[in-house]
Amino acid sequence: MLKLDFHPAGRHFLQIPGPSPVPDRILRAMSYPTIDHRGPEFGALGLTVLDGIKKIFKTAQPVVIYPASGTGAWEAALTNTLSPGDTVLMYETGHFATLWKKLAENLGLKPEFLGLPGTEGWRRGVQPDLIEARLRADSGHAIKAVCVVHNETSTGVTSDIAAVRRAIDAAGHPALLLVDTISGLASADYRHDEWGVDVTVSGSQKGLMLPPGISFNAVSQKALDASRQAKLPRAFWGWAEIIEANHLGYWPYTPNTNLLYGLAEALDMILGEGLDRVFARHQRLAGACRAAVNAWGLEIQCVDPAVYSPVLTGVVMPEGVDADAVRKTIYEHFDLSLGTGLGKVKGRMFRIGHLGDCNDLTLLAALGGCEMGLKLSGIALRGSGVTAAMDYLTSHVAKPALKVAA
Amino acid sequence: MLKLDFHPAGRHFLQIPGPSPVPDRILRAMSYPTIDHRGPEFGALGLTVLDGIKKIFKTAQPVVIYPASGTGAWEAALTNTLSPGDTVLMYETGHFATLWKKLAENLGLKPEFLGLPGTEGWRRGVQPDLIEARLRADSGHAIKAVCVVHNETSTGVTSDIAAVRRAIDAAGHPALLLVDTISGLASADYRHDEWGVDVTVSGSQKGLMLPPGISFNAVSQKALDASRQAKLPRAFWGWAEIIEANHLGYWPYTPNTNLLYGLAEALDMILGEGLDRVFARHQRLAGACRAAVNAWGLEIQCVDPAVYSPVLTGVVMPEGVDADAVRKTIYEHFDLSLGTGLGKVKGRMFRIGHLGDCNDLTLLAALGGCEMGLKLSGIALRGSGVTAAMDYLTSHVAKPALKVAA
Amino acid sequence: MLKLDFHPAGRHFLQIPGPSPVPDRILRAMSYPTIDHRGPEFGALGLTVLDGIKKIFKTAQPVVIYPASGTGAWEAALTNTLSPGDTVLMYETGHFATLWKKLAENLGLKPEFLGLPGTEGWRRGVQPDLIEARLRADSGHAIKAVCVVHNETSTGVTSDIAAVRRAIDAAGHPALLLVDTISGLASADYRHDEWGVDVTVSGSQKGLMLPPGISFNAVSQKALDASRQAKLPRAFWGWAEIIEANHLGYWPYTPNTNLLYGLAEALDMILGEGLDRVFARHQRLAGACRAAVNAWGLEIQCVDPAVYSPVLTGVVMPEGVDADAVRKTIYEHFDLSLGTGLGKVKGRMFRIGHLGDCNDLTLLAALGGCEMGLKLSGIALRGSGVTAAMDYLTSHVAKPALKVAA
Amino acid sequence: MLKLDFHPAGRHFLQIPGPSPVPDRILRAMSYPTIDHRGPEFGALGLTVLDGIKKIFKTAQPVVIYPASGTGAWEAALTNTLSPGDTVLMYETGHFATLWKKLAENLGLKPEFLGLPGTEGWRRGVQPDLIEARLRADSGHAIKAVCVVHNETSTGVTSDIAAVRRAIDAAGHPALLLVDTISGLASADYRHDEWGVDVTVSGSQKGLMLPPGISFNAVSQKALDASRQAKLPRAFWGWAEIIEANHLGYWPYTPNTNLLYGLAEALDMILGEGLDRVFARHQRLAGACRAAVNAWGLEIQCVDPAVYSPVLTGVVMPEGVDADAVRKTIYEHFDLSLGTGLGKVKGRMFRIGHLGDCNDLTLLAALGGCEMGLKLSGIALRGSGVTAAMDYLTSHVAKPALKVAA
Repeated sequence: MLKLDFHPAGRHFLQIPGPSPVPDRILRAMSYPTIDHRGPEFGALGLTVLDGIKKIFKTAQPVVIYPASGTGAWEAALTNTLSPGDTVLMYETGHFATLWKKLAENLGLKPEFLGLPGTEGWRRGVQPDLIEARLRADSGHAIKAVCVVHNETSTGVTSDIAAVRRAIDAAGHPALLLVDTISGLASADYRHDEWGVDVTVSGSQKGLMLPPGISFNAVSQKALDASRQAKLPRAFWGWAEIIEANHLGYWPYTPNTNLLYGLAEALDMILGEGLDRVFARHQRLAGACRAAVNAWGLEIQCVDPAVYSPVLTGVVMPEGVDADAVRKTIYEHFDLSLGTGLGKVKGRMFRIGHLGDCNDLTLLAALGGCEMGLKLSGIALRGSGVTAAMDYLTSHVAKPALKVAA
Repeated sequence: MLKLDFHPAGRHFLQIPGPSPVPDRILRAMSYPTIDHRGPEFGALGLTVLDGIKKIFKTAQPVVIYPASGTGAWEAALTNTLSPGDTVLMYETGHFATLWKKLAENLGLKPEFLGLPGTEGWRRGVQPDLIEARLRADSGHAIKAVCVVHNETSTGVTSDIAAVRRAIDAAGHPALLLVDTISGLASADYRHDEWGVDVTVSGSQKGLMLPPGISFNAVSQKALDASRQAKLPRAFWGWAEIIEANHLGYWPYTPNTNLLYGLAEALDMILGEGLDRVFARHQRLAGACRAAVNAWGLEIQCVDPAVYSPVLTGVVMPEGVDADAVRKTIYEHFDLSLGTGLGKVKGRMFRIGHLGDCNDLTLLAALGGCEMGLKLSGIALRGSGVTAAMDYLTSHVAKPALKVAA
Repeated sequence: MLKLDFHPAGRHFLQIPGPSPVPDRILRAMSYPTIDHRGPEFGALGLTVLDGIKKIFKTAQPVVIYPASGTGAWEAALTNTLSPGDTVLMYETGHFATLWKKLAENLGLKPEFLGLPGTEGWRRGVQPDLIEARLRADSGHAIKAVCVVHNETSTGVTSDIAAVRRAIDAAGHPALLLVDTISGLASADYRHDEWGVDVTVSGSQKGLMLPPGISFNAVSQKALDASRQAKLPRAFWGWAEIIEANHLGYWPYTPNTNLLYGLAEALDMILGEGLDRVFARHQRLAGACRAAVNAWGLEIQCVDPAVYSPVLTGVVMPEGVDADAVRKTIYEHFDLSLGTGLGKVKGRMFRIGHLGDCNDLTLLAALGGCEMGLKLSGIALRGSGVTAAMDYLTSHVAKPALKVAA
Repeated sequence: MLKLDFHPAGRHFLQIPGPSPVPDRILRAMSYPTIDHRGPEFGALGLTVLDGIKKIFKTAQPVVIYPASGTGAWEAALTNTLSPGDTVLMYETGHFATLWKKLAENLGLKPEFLGLPGTEGWRRGVQPDLIEARLRADSGHAIKAVCVVHNETSTGVTSDIAAVRRAIDAAGHPALLLVDTISGLASADYRHDEWGVDVTVSGSQKGLMLPPGISFNAVSQKALDASRQAKLPRAFWGWAEIIEANHLGYWPYTPNTNLLYGLAEALDMILGEGLDRVFARHQRLAGACRAAVNAWGLEIQCVDPAVYSPVLTGVVMPEGVDADAVRKTIYEHFDLSLGTGLGKVKGRMFRIGHLGDCNDLTLLAALGGCEMGLKLSGIALRGSGVTAAMDYLTSHVAKPALKVAA
């Protein structure tokens, strides 16, 4: 068997913004023997996860589960609703928005990339007024879809999806609203139905605390209607057959059985804790993390407090410091994985994930690893971030609702 | 946690032709915590599996691993090599060949479906002379690819891929040769390079003994060249970026980490035993299974002994018997899952899988479950299949190469 | 990691009469991380298992759980109740009764070994009239305890414990009744309170379907009273401190935490199925196993049908055949472990376990392995045992109570 | 399945001085299906662990492995070597030394309890001169054994075993030397042979990183000789039969199979890292922990720096503070388990374990939990212990020997 931890002892701290740490309960659920995907047990499993996942998306409409990782769900959202050469309005919030745009191009669509100049858009969320203005200008309705990222994993900036919906409506434009919340789902509040989203794209390896390998499209009736006209070739990603087979808890082709076991367990954990408590927990840990970055005297990538991500925090390095060299030092000395800077901010920042199965002490450990690694890298810090985080945590006491008898 | 076995006690026997039973070693390997897919441990894992999987396909050329189940790899083989409206010559060997054809249509290709009339093609392998004749007739080389299934999972019939290659060459035709060996790989001998296959499609949940969720394209240089001209839109399935990232053991988007753990373990098991011994084991178990069916006085779906599948055996029910009712009786009484009849043979047959992590006694158990279930269903049997299988096994003694010190 | 299966592929069949196969659910429960044995979670675990285990012993009195394997619980039963030099009446039912007697001698007790001559006692259960006669003769009440084995693991013979109780009462003798049901508990009906047993000894690795490592003393009030006078030195095995600490779910010294996780799961499985259904399942499989032995024309070790064990069946070899050579052949060819002959019957018989997590097809597989191995060993069989077992199973239809929606 | 973590999310931090956190690799190894304890695979397993464990004890003499938790190994050391009424010289280092003495009394021995007055002995290690003086006074050699604890788990104080050996030799006394290193083994240097120890007692759940359930006696020739004369009744604990069966890798009674799987894995991990590196790692983490306690302005239970434990650190509370109330606050808010104060120091201190599978960030997390919990408990701290620990760790850089290719 491969020995996969290169460090001699102790637990690895996986604080990238996904894959997030997979709880033992889920790893154990996933190790149940694979069953017949056409048998009665599978049907029961399928109905359970298809029902539960709707609660996470806050939707009463279909959620399609793909046996493929998240990039596939991006592709699915586009191929099901659009036709070759269609114009789509995409918004540059960061690296993942950029990748989604590139994917749209590869599929033969014509994405128009809206955003603030330079890296400014990488530090603020979507500006709905820009979208509204652009749509108003599109009097011929050439734009078929508006695509935005809810939680930019590359920056730690969220966007106000309800406001994007309002912008589209204000412009009186019929474009579909497609949203990527791959790293936001189950960590930040998300409301597919209430916000009027047409397709929501997500994946397993973030707030759902699963390994990568399954991904999602939550689908509105308007999107379903559009899919009947859409001309992009599609087979594997086609919604219709899947939704049909899902009625009895099955899939038209082989599903990713063991990840569905994990999903059933994750739903049990998340819905058992309650989404509101899950979101509050994320907010509190994110607050403590930002307190640490501030105490260090370092800059946070997100410059608008209204859109701080509860999922991850981007930490900007002082001028002249190679963020990846710092990350390497931290990894090698302290067995801690942080997210790298991607795209336009490569080498300029690293990202601390504080999502999913994370608690106060795990976050402190991660911040301790950062603080020590920054020092070993010769970076002058204004103060102790760990101490600031502890102050934050003890002054925002959230005694967990223990299941302990008195 | 979901309780997924509806039976009160004892182990489920999963004898469908895939997903095949996942060995404990692999389930355990898969339950290792998910790691950073951009970290050094992952790179080591990636290089290990990318190297090992080539040995399974018997190729020195790239094998692309997708974080998606097998149907996706079908799509990938087509979208990487073909353009909208291309004619492809497909061969009807059974239900999965039919599904692949339907998928090609969905993608906007023009598949031409060759084969024997009625269900005759479902009982014999590919007839290379038909392919040769058709290609000779295609003097304008409108046909861009020939697509055949190596081991028809719906029937238990294999096809002679080397002979198909010879047929194409004899016709002097430039079409690509695309082969599906989703259920054949690592159970039946397969030689991607030697047989001159351009794209081989496979999946994880059969001979590789993994859960479903990853799939493969082994790719020839000719296929790579074709991919540069191919016009079908593609992004998630695109070979170029993946092969590029694979050089260091990484993927351009999030891979299915925990299934790759399992793949590393599976490669260790299969290459440790040795492919030749693995194939011989499958042949022996298949022989015992057919001895049982013959003893029962029932018909085997495959009528040409030259192309009996070592992976599964299709058992045809006597006229008037509903095969699915028999399967249900067997499942409910004996906690044994068998493959259903698919497509043209729905209700007419069931399939016994004897692939992957199967041994003599597991096969006997499955045959015992069939024999008892057939009797409980009121079907008159000529004799005991289990007894015949035992005779076969003891007269084809294969004392395993035990790792026991004398 | 050690590779522990010497066979190249497929599942090992563990059909010794214990350790019995440990279900995946239990292995998974046991792999939960070890917790603080003085913390609140542990207290909840402790109270759960201490409550549940009483239902298995059918007792309202304390059940002491030791972090030690079964032999320790034998020692505990004696050291808690007896004093150096005490006479105990033990009954020779087979090898384990003999070992218990030897253990008593090692502890400085004076066991008197009652039984039928030669190996006759190894083929029949306890004869209560012999016990009654011996106790009547003991007018001075020198005998302090009567020790019998409920299910002799070495022979496949049970004994009527209620009848032993009646014999003691009929003799008007005050001796304690100590019973070993290490291999009987949770497979054969057992009633600690109703049968008036003073100490019942059991272990984890049989009907409870756990790995070895924890063991039990169910204790009557009379035994507790005796323990206050008993003079054998004791510390680790002392009941008083354990029972005291158990009130809050704890132990006075470090318990075997992970096996207690497994026990909680096992109790959930067994009590969920219902003890009566569990016992009926064992009886049915035992019946099928004996049908096979009869069909082979071989002798069953137990000669009194009234006391056939539902747990295991001893199969006597024809004169001149070395049973261990047969077992070795079966193990090497078919990856099947059978129980060896022990003590007086060494080399004369082997034992087929059909307890715990066993179902129809697992038993058939085991019988198939035996039948083929017997043939490979050159032993002439009268007929097919597997066929006879299938006939038995289909004529004793026990369609399991499936949790399948209609 | 029992849900055993009462906290809603994130990983529990188990920082009691044992059970220590069990690494995933070991939990996974332990979940391999239980095998026949008399079969060939088991023999291979047995020989592997019996060989490896000697390297941990640094002995060429037998190490007996019991399927019982550590208290049993205490009992075994005494019952194998002593006779009823024997005088043994025991040394009061703390609560576990006291418990061992009580156990000796329960077994009918006459322990004489040496030590410094009050709780002074609980803050310093064994004083060898006191032992030497007492033995010199025992001219009639009434004392049969000297019993000391190598690493007092209740205090965080070690003792110099080599010096105890020299003291015995200097007195020219024939008493056996029995040492408990239940919590020291594989964390602190220990040399059974070189130090002339006659019986070393240890357990699985500390430095070996296993769950509780197996325990050890390393045995000298002199101890073996003594065991032939020793008259305490013994059966389960008897060395002779076990050592005899161990020659082929087996045990005379049912061993704790799944914990032996874990032991094989643990040996692989520890011997793979190298004992010297393991010890250095423990020393470094212990240094960081003490730096934290000092920075808080709190007292360390151990007052002699020469005998600081590398395994755990006892933290004394300010006068008037209930240590268990602080522990409860820490547990409830931060999901961190600390060791309670035991015996004479109950309520006065808590213990931080930093043994086994621990690394820098796990220790920091634990210290962070303590620091926040102390503050929430209203205890004034002089400074930040976490900051001090980070300073210690970065100034004692131990870049781990990573298995990373350059």
